Amino acid sequence: MNHRLVANVLGKVMLIEALLMIFPLFVGIYYRENTYLNYLLPMAGLTAAGTALSLIKIKDRSIYAKEGFVIVALAWIIMSLVGATCFVIGGEIPNYIDAFFETVSGFTTTGASILNNVETLSKSGMFWRLFTHWIGGMGVLVFVLAVIPASGSGAMHIFKAESPGPSSSKLVGKIRNTAQILYGIYVIMTLIETILLCTGGLNLYESLLNSFSTAGTGGFGTHNGSIAYYNSVYVEMVIAVFMFLFGVNFNVYYLFIIGNFSKAFRNREFLTYFAIVVVSTLIIAINILGMCADFSAALRYSFFQVTSISSTTGFATADFNTWPALSKGILLVLTVVGACGGSTGGGMKVSRVIVLCKSGAADIKRMINPRAVITVKNEGSALTSETEQNVRSYFILYMLFVVAVTLLVSLDAYSGGDILSNFSATLACIGNVGPGLNLVGPASSYAGYNWFSKLSLSFAMLAGRLELFPIIILFTPRTWKK
Amino acid sequence: MNHRLVANVLGKVMLIEALLMIFPLFVGIYYRENTYLNYLLPMAGLTAAGTALSLIKIKDRSIYAKEGFVIVALAWIIMSLVGATCFVIGGEIPNYIDAFFETVSGFTTTGASILNNVETLSKSGMFWRLFTHWIGGMGVLVFVLAVIPASGSGAMHIFKAESPGPSSSKLVGKIRNTAQILYGIYVIMTLIETILLCTGGLNLYESLLNSFSTAGTGGFGTHNGSIAYYNSVYVEMVIAVFMFLFGVNFNVYYLFIIGNFSKAFRNREFLTYFAIVVVSTLIIAINILGMCADFSAALRYSFFQVTSISSTTGFATADFNTWPALSKGILLVLTVVGACGGSTGGGMKVSRVIVLCKSGAADIKRMINPRAVITVKNEGSALTSETEQNVRSYFILYMLFVVAVTLLVSLDAYSGGDILSNFSATLACIGNVGPGLNLVGPASSYAGYNWFSKLSLSFAMLAGRLELFPIIILFTPRTWKK
Repeated sequence: MNHRLVANVLGKVMLIEALLMIFPLFVGIYYRENTYLNYLLPMAGLTAAGTALSLIKIKDRSIYAKEGFVIVALAWIIMSLVGATCFVIGGEIPNYIDAFFETVSGFTTTGASILNNVETLSKSGMFWRLFTHWIGGMGVLVFVLAVIPASGSGAMHIFKAESPGPSSSKLVGKIRNTAQILYGIYVIMTLIETILLCTGGLNLYESLLNSFSTAGTGGFGTHNGSIAYYNSVYVEMVIAVFMFLFGVNFNVYYLFIIGNFSKAFRNREFLTYFAIVVVSTLIIAINILGMCADFSAALRYSFFQVTSISSTTGFATADFNTWPALSKGILLVLTVVGACGGSTGGGMKVSRVIVLCKSGAADIKRMINPRAVITVKNEGSALTSETEQNVRSYFILYMLFVVAVTLLVSLDAYSGGDILSNFSATLACIGNVGPGLNLVGPASSYAGYNWFSKLSLSFAMLAGRLELFPIIILFTPRTWKK
Repeated sequence: MNHRLVANVLGKVMLIEALLMIFPLFVGIYYRENTYLNYLLPMAGLTAAGTALSLIKIKDRSIYAKEGFVIVALAWIIMSLVGATCFVIGGEIPNYIDAFFETVSGFTTTGASILNNVETLSKSGMFWRLFTHWIGGMGVLVFVLAVIPASGSGAMHIFKAESPGPSSSKLVGKIRNTAQILYGIYVIMTLIETILLCTGGLNLYESLLNSFSTAGTGGFGTHNGSIAYYNSVYVEMVIAVFMFLFGVNFNVYYLFIIGNFSKAFRNREFLTYFAIVVVSTLIIAINILGMCADFSAALRYSFFQVTSISSTTGFATADFNTWPALSKGILLVLTVVGACGGSTGGGMKVSRVIVLCKSGAADIKRMINPRAVITVKNEGSALTSETEQNVRSYFILYMLFVVAVTLLVSLDAYSGGDILSNFSATLACIGNVGPGLNLVGPASSYAGYNWFSKLSLSFAMLAGRLELFPIIILFTPRTWKK
């Protein structure tokens, strides 16, 4: 383990976080809130520690996959540990574990909240809470790579460890330029949504914050009723469409920008994601028809909820906890499937599910004709055995992780005998969705769980956002052996 | 597809089923019940059709994996279709779909029942119902192979397709002798349990029937209160120990018989299965302590339920539906894990779970040290990549199957919004356990589901018992292409 280099990069991450806290600081000053210490104190600490770590001389610039995973895992944990203090110092979330849960939920773009009443937060506190979604959506390390000249091949390890999806490819030759293009697309799309929401009658503050939440596919809301608060078809549809768009692989947008439309439209993952949303919307709309005024109302609720869960945002306009079993079942499946790789969304990723299904079908064909040569095609080229194995391995670890966290959370007496709450909470946290069923349904919060459950679910959120390996590897003794 | 050979073997299966129906016929005559037509009519049909099919001349004796799967799948479906008529003819289960569900549940040793009051069945009907567990436990085709001279290499394909577990090995050179040894062990263990239950005060009829149910790891009971009816610690402990024993790979018993004790005791699957039962029993006993009189009472309920679910039998002495979430969660995990390969139990099988965990751990090691050569050991020898892939493939198909059946069952309005009932029903059926949670808990039945759900769950039971591939391959168009 190249300790010096790890410490040095973490120092840079700390300095970046200090810089990012300037935004909520100014929001507080603008709204004449007495919240400046909430941000100045952490900023001071981050600057001091970050500067000290950045000054560590790196003797050896070489960095391997292991270091990449450890840097990413520690960066996210440190950012959350410090980010939580912004809520604690001012007493907005007095309990530190609660604040940590909320901040992890923010950065990982989960949107699971321990706040029963979000409307008591200060303007700056609310800004910081939703800003964490926006920061976490594209990734902090990607940001570091975008602004700081990276150290050769090491950058790719960091980029790979943080980027979601089974294969992260550079758009252009240099990682730094790739990171800049990604952030460029991200900023522009966020601005477009903000303008559209302003047009719909929301003020700039609310428009911006809801756009942060949508862009990161987070799901924290600025009001207790989530998006239902606005009671506006226009607002719902803008947000629904943008939730869908932020769940798309950003490579597709890059192909659009460089004019390669045919390749963009042939992207199998995008088409499957689109099909999943359309089919799920229709089935759920028919399923909940009896609970709605008419089919258009059913379609409105269904479309919003499907894009929300599919993109792993977690906004709600209806309490889907009261929906029939089929609708709930589909939403749980969407929670596991998640959005496209290379998007800001979470879950298992559509591309992985495609590979799982295709290789499953190939296995059945091989059973029927053991001597036939069956090749699996994916995104136009033959699927390598390595990718197939990685995806399968990921699925299995994901499921083992879900089982382990569900049982850990079940140690908590809070849920009584309600295993579905614990199971759906785990799926919603590891999938970075936010709301689950029963006790953690869209009309409830995670406040009732004890500290151990909150910590377990926090690590599930981190594991989900960072796609398991960074968090697992951080806690594996083998990583730290000489 | 070698149609003639398939038809010929199915004919033999039909004749065997006709022979097996002699037992309930005589039970009815012995108890002077007016039920003889319930068995004579199906026997006549089976004998006629079976004889006709057996007379088909086989031109080509060659048989491949494909034929093995199709024979096994069709044999089990036909046996269930005809076996169900025994309940319908006498009006004991008037609805044919219900009778089919009950018979499939019997043969697949699931033990899920549509009967709200089992005590209204005739003595012969009850005998047939529990006898199906005993027949299905070891497998019908294994029986065919044991009694009829098999046609060369083809026997292995049939044996493999029906035997549970990731790898089915012949104990001795010939399949026929292997099948005879397996049935020998099975008969002797069943008799020992029967004698022990008689010693405990049960009459011969009840002792034999409960032994059938235990031996097949089925779970149908002769009374409405399942095993709790007897209210006897002795009976519970005998049954619990035998449930555990029938969940062990029969190869271990064979090793005992031939005196190879050291190899028997080094069997990793057996040791893991044992450890799972001990650890789960202790955790659940502590977890339900508050609901019980004292720790010994908690241990009694916990041990019985853990061996019951672990071996995928499904007997109950307590309504675990009312237990805390942790206990329920563990029982659901045990439902998925199941018993050992090569036993009469169902589920994913302990050996597969071992492979999944070991290869998952190996993948993490490979991530940390990409250049290190990591070999996975299993049962004393290196795990081949093929076995690893087969197990992973099986797990993925199993989960996809669970999701599909859960959604199909959720089309049924019966469960309302209760997705946990549908999910646990699916897990309990595909795992051949029987009872699930909520609506399908140990104190309830499957009676409330509509015909479509019952058919879906019937196929889940068959798919689980036959380890997916026979049922999937039967319904794949590719199988039937020339």
